[in-house]
Amino acid sequence: MKAIVIHDARDLRIDEQPVENPGPGQVLIRMAAGGICGSDLHYFNHGGFGTVRLKEPMVLGHEVAGHVEALGEGVTGLSKGQLVAVSPSRPCGSCKFCDQAMFNHCLNMRFYGSAMPFPHIQGAFRELLVADAAQCVPADGLTPAQAAMAEPLAVCLHATRRAGPMLGKSVLVTGCGPIGILCILAARRAGADLIVATDLGDFALQMARKAGADVVLNTGTDRAALDAYGADKGSFDLLYECSGAAPALAGAIPAMRPGGTIIQLGLGGDMTLPVQAMTAKELSLKGSFRFHEEFATGVSLMRKGLIDVSPFITHSFALNDAVAAFQIAGDRSQAIKAQIVFN
Amino acid sequence: MKAIVIHDARDLRIDEQPVENPGPGQVLIRMAAGGICGSDLHYFNHGGFGTVRLKEPMVLGHEVAGHVEALGEGVTGLSKGQLVAVSPSRPCGSCKFCDQAMFNHCLNMRFYGSAMPFPHIQGAFRELLVADAAQCVPADGLTPAQAAMAEPLAVCLHATRRAGPMLGKSVLVTGCGPIGILCILAARRAGADLIVATDLGDFALQMARKAGADVVLNTGTDRAALDAYGADKGSFDLLYECSGAAPALAGAIPAMRPGGTIIQLGLGGDMTLPVQAMTAKELSLKGSFRFHEEFATGVSLMRKGLIDVSPFITHSFALNDAVAAFQIAGDRSQAIKAQIVFN
Amino acid sequence: MKAIVIHDARDLRIDEQPVENPGPGQVLIRMAAGGICGSDLHYFNHGGFGTVRLKEPMVLGHEVAGHVEALGEGVTGLSKGQLVAVSPSRPCGSCKFCDQAMFNHCLNMRFYGSAMPFPHIQGAFRELLVADAAQCVPADGLTPAQAAMAEPLAVCLHATRRAGPMLGKSVLVTGCGPIGILCILAARRAGADLIVATDLGDFALQMARKAGADVVLNTGTDRAALDAYGADKGSFDLLYECSGAAPALAGAIPAMRPGGTIIQLGLGGDMTLPVQAMTAKELSLKGSFRFHEEFATGVSLMRKGLIDVSPFITHSFALNDAVAAFQIAGDRSQAIKAQIVFN
Amino acid sequence: MKAIVIHDARDLRIDEQPVENPGPGQVLIRMAAGGICGSDLHYFNHGGFGTVRLKEPMVLGHEVAGHVEALGEGVTGLSKGQLVAVSPSRPCGSCKFCDQAMFNHCLNMRFYGSAMPFPHIQGAFRELLVADAAQCVPADGLTPAQAAMAEPLAVCLHATRRAGPMLGKSVLVTGCGPIGILCILAARRAGADLIVATDLGDFALQMARKAGADVVLNTGTDRAALDAYGADKGSFDLLYECSGAAPALAGAIPAMRPGGTIIQLGLGGDMTLPVQAMTAKELSLKGSFRFHEEFATGVSLMRKGLIDVSPFITHSFALNDAVAAFQIAGDRSQAIKAQIVFN
Repeated sequence: MKAIVIHDARDLRIDEQPVENPGPGQVLIRMAAGGICGSDLHYFNHGGFGTVRLKEPMVLGHEVAGHVEALGEGVTGLSKGQLVAVSPSRPCGSCKFCDQAMFNHCLNMRFYGSAMPFPHIQGAFRELLVADAAQCVPADGLTPAQAAMAEPLAVCLHATRRAGPMLGKSVLVTGCGPIGILCILAARRAGADLIVATDLGDFALQMARKAGADVVLNTGTDRAALDAYGADKGSFDLLYECSGAAPALAGAIPAMRPGGTIIQLGLGGDMTLPVQAMTAKELSLKGSFRFHEEFATGVSLMRKGLIDVSPFITHSFALNDAVAAFQIAGDRSQAIKAQIVFN
Repeated sequence: MKAIVIHDARDLRIDEQPVENPGPGQVLIRMAAGGICGSDLHYFNHGGFGTVRLKEPMVLGHEVAGHVEALGEGVTGLSKGQLVAVSPSRPCGSCKFCDQAMFNHCLNMRFYGSAMPFPHIQGAFRELLVADAAQCVPADGLTPAQAAMAEPLAVCLHATRRAGPMLGKSVLVTGCGPIGILCILAARRAGADLIVATDLGDFALQMARKAGADVVLNTGTDRAALDAYGADKGSFDLLYECSGAAPALAGAIPAMRPGGTIIQLGLGGDMTLPVQAMTAKELSLKGSFRFHEEFATGVSLMRKGLIDVSPFITHSFALNDAVAAFQIAGDRSQAIKAQIVFN
Repeated sequence: MKAIVIHDARDLRIDEQPVENPGPGQVLIRMAAGGICGSDLHYFNHGGFGTVRLKEPMVLGHEVAGHVEALGEGVTGLSKGQLVAVSPSRPCGSCKFCDQAMFNHCLNMRFYGSAMPFPHIQGAFRELLVADAAQCVPADGLTPAQAAMAEPLAVCLHATRRAGPMLGKSVLVTGCGPIGILCILAARRAGADLIVATDLGDFALQMARKAGADVVLNTGTDRAALDAYGADKGSFDLLYECSGAAPALAGAIPAMRPGGTIIQLGLGGDMTLPVQAMTAKELSLKGSFRFHEEFATGVSLMRKGLIDVSPFITHSFALNDAVAAFQIAGDRSQAIKAQIVFN
Repeated sequence: MKAIVIHDARDLRIDEQPVENPGPGQVLIRMAAGGICGSDLHYFNHGGFGTVRLKEPMVLGHEVAGHVEALGEGVTGLSKGQLVAVSPSRPCGSCKFCDQAMFNHCLNMRFYGSAMPFPHIQGAFRELLVADAAQCVPADGLTPAQAAMAEPLAVCLHATRRAGPMLGKSVLVTGCGPIGILCILAARRAGADLIVATDLGDFALQMARKAGADVVLNTGTDRAALDAYGADKGSFDLLYECSGAAPALAGAIPAMRPGGTIIQLGLGGDMTLPVQAMTAKELSLKGSFRFHEEFATGVSLMRKGLIDVSPFITHSFALNDAVAAFQIAGDRSQAIKAQIVFN
């Protein structure tokens, strides 16, 4: 079978790999669709990010969906041919954080396509994947492309849960890539009232409006765009910071109301922040990292038609065109989510 | 001008009353639509409820919307002819609970159409009403009938905020009158996943399904209807108890998951409850009473098309047919919300 | 070895039982002290409570401490002769609630001395006990009597955590048996400001004052005792309901401030409650049941001298006088906690 | 009467000022004790901090207590000669944040001794002060020196409330000046279990231990001092950051457990923080600023003997020695809190 393997920065190959058999409690999945995430792009473009560096070839990919091809011993609740969204999160279930149900902080996490430990955790961009049945969420009624959005959607639903009650809240979103867009959908689904989105590019803002943002602002061309929201110590209850850029976060501080919350999703290394102003306003800056039960929640909400991710899957490429897919995936002037079609 | 005045149980009259002039900070409103609430029906049918009894004639009504007819001195932000939803909640702003922003617990509350203090607080079912500008929320783009739903919707949005984060939650609603129906809409808007509704009548359940309930159960004809949800200590995260009937609440306890929350909206006097079972499951029974800022939130969500109350306004009557309106308003075999049209 | 076995209501015997050997990960404990709990008394006096009935002889006891006599294979962190408090809570670790870290709601709980499942879960009032090392919390520096208070203290610390932030709060405690007394200690430790305690007996109230209550009220002799706290819709932020008596709970409602919280600890079967008044005040009635990590917390706080339970261990009896101990344990005119000394 | 007036950096004078008369609802206070705060020192040493600069002479001081000398019209609940702690916080009571009970974010705050608006808000270091009765909390039973600690204590109680439930928590305090020390007292009072304190100086750490810290670490002489707490993704539930120094905060991140909370009290302008690591751990960084109802809470807890601030009032100076007081107040090798005695 074929797999999409990163060997080094800019060295992405379609390699042949042996097919595995599903063990007890496992299933064999014939992959259908896989979305390219920002971390995949970091490996492709730079061979890693921060202190996380490629040390051996690694199959990329962790946003995937496919059809059940074979069932291992003892698997129930899934059937051959069924479309499933596959969660890339594989906590150990027995470390101190798993024991506290903080699975996304598992000390022994094996998250698909991560170069953090060595040997690396191989990813899911492959024609045939053996996964635990517990990772597979039935996605009947969805397209494979939609089902493959379950992973980034879960990230944004988790962020939304960390934000606390959302009903009637006034929300700012900085950075309208896939995560920003899905945060808009999640905030809307969770009952936000006013949603304002900012970005430096007009295509992204167009998509933000399509996702339901009431107001979109290009803070690149109009640096004073947020000023009106900063009167009387500010007005936003909540900020989803999806850019990972310190100026975006710092620039939003005056527009946040005292006691407001900032959910940090963007990963941008060290950031220089106006902590004194944040303290005087009693803001809460809360990191949000990955997800757990929100994966199944997202599939369920999509299946009920309560969240529609389809307009934001802007590009699909055949497996053999993977390199082209990676080249366009990060181009925010035309792409939100680019996916690989495996069959 | 005409007003709908309750003189005694079953003695509802259309009385002539003098027109007032709006003072500074006030507006004169030409009433357009008014919904009949359960408490209006209690006055109509029984002359009161519990220890709250009519002691003098009282204008009924607190779910109203109308058009601005005249502006008092110093009023800004409203214009003549504009449709407004009028909040019936008038806290004093200076008691110890107002000082703590707990306005719905104001010690000196003057809520329209309440026989609790004496002299009674006169209601809003009248052709012309003088209200504080602060009570009026612009409702441009809505119909008067929709705008008049802002009050019961606010009750349900407040309940939803008291329920805490809703995203992905599994929700049970007992009692599908107007409050139950609007709780379904609110829970869906706030991101609930599974919504199950119960009632003793099929019309109410039909409406519950229209409101978005995934499953509806007639617990009158099938007393075991909830049993499937009670396996392994139960599954619902949240119960909106909208019936005020102890058997409905008690019957739902086995279906609630440990640590779950019950929001009590129905007002049913004393109730005999399985407190030992509730304690062993560590359930939280939280009362929800009226609302404050949720009134404006509800209008905003309706104006954005994020909540649609229209299908649940089942009946409209001319002012002169008020008695007929009151007779049908509580008939759960055909009515959810009955309204009076004032012009 | 000897064990305290309940055979039927009022039929308590000191029976001979075989000594077990500790398996891997287990320890053998030479029991030192064991406190008599309300549920032990129910078995002794009535052969059970509610639907929980004795169907076979059962060793009683779940508030115990002793010295490590032997270590099973692979046990680390404990040493021979060391005093340990032994948690009676043994969740399965693999059911759906354990997976969510809700261990006190384990579907397969084996809590010492419970007649709920059949065969019953045998208790810990025995000279030698085999326990999992994970149940044993080192209690160096405490007396065995103090260490044996870890279990009821854990119940009250858990209740206090369910109550939310306590700093500066105004607290009412109804029912000053062992649980009420320990709730006073816990509330004080957690930063409560005003603590008022009620009971029907003067000895219990004397002990409540010793535990740190600022005000004690005999609501038996003075039924209007709480009236002063009920002015202007009430003043208590929090109620620990430790009596399990509906009149105690109902009588406290007028004294609770709007938005206040009631933690229900007392187990009294069905209760008839003024739910309408509770709803109008938006009170939260939250059950509290057993504990998990609070067991170790309580031992730690006692070891640091931050909670002192000693004054409330009012009686100690030799193992052979167990019947006398059970006779006095529930006499609230002279006893708070009666314990058995095993060696 | 005499007042302590800052004219410019290092230009502190004892000036004569006219005595005012208390108006309706006000009292005249004969000042007894006043503590020197970090912001007083900034004005003394640098003429301000950040963008806050002295533009006219200003009476310093906001940590004060004195005896009631005269009562204005209509004042009840206070008596002549009574010792009162005087809150320096004077919110307007009518802006949008006061309406939401967020008084510490009042848009028109007049906090004693602040050069933020112009004309400046004059402070309370004066022999006779006219204050609103509502600012005065009876402090019977306390010494004036203790009562003057109510203000910084309130800051730390407010921070503790923002930290959420504290019972059994593992707490780190970075920076053991007056605020760090009072945070230790507050955390202990609120039920913290393990408290570890760090500072660069041994005197401060000695005082931290006296305040109840279980462990004190000099992170200046031992940069690896916190390493042991960083194993397995860290162990502290909570950090009180009281230094305002970015290295202190950044250095604590590895020792924080995933999901932990950082309360930022120190005001240090912009800070460069490891936001990516904070995000991956899902830490919450929450600013804490001033206080409101915690002022009265602190006085109450001191009066009940539940918090003892006395050991940390290290220096007292006569009014005429104010300059010497200011010179020593910031010397962390010998001083925690230096106070002025006014009579």
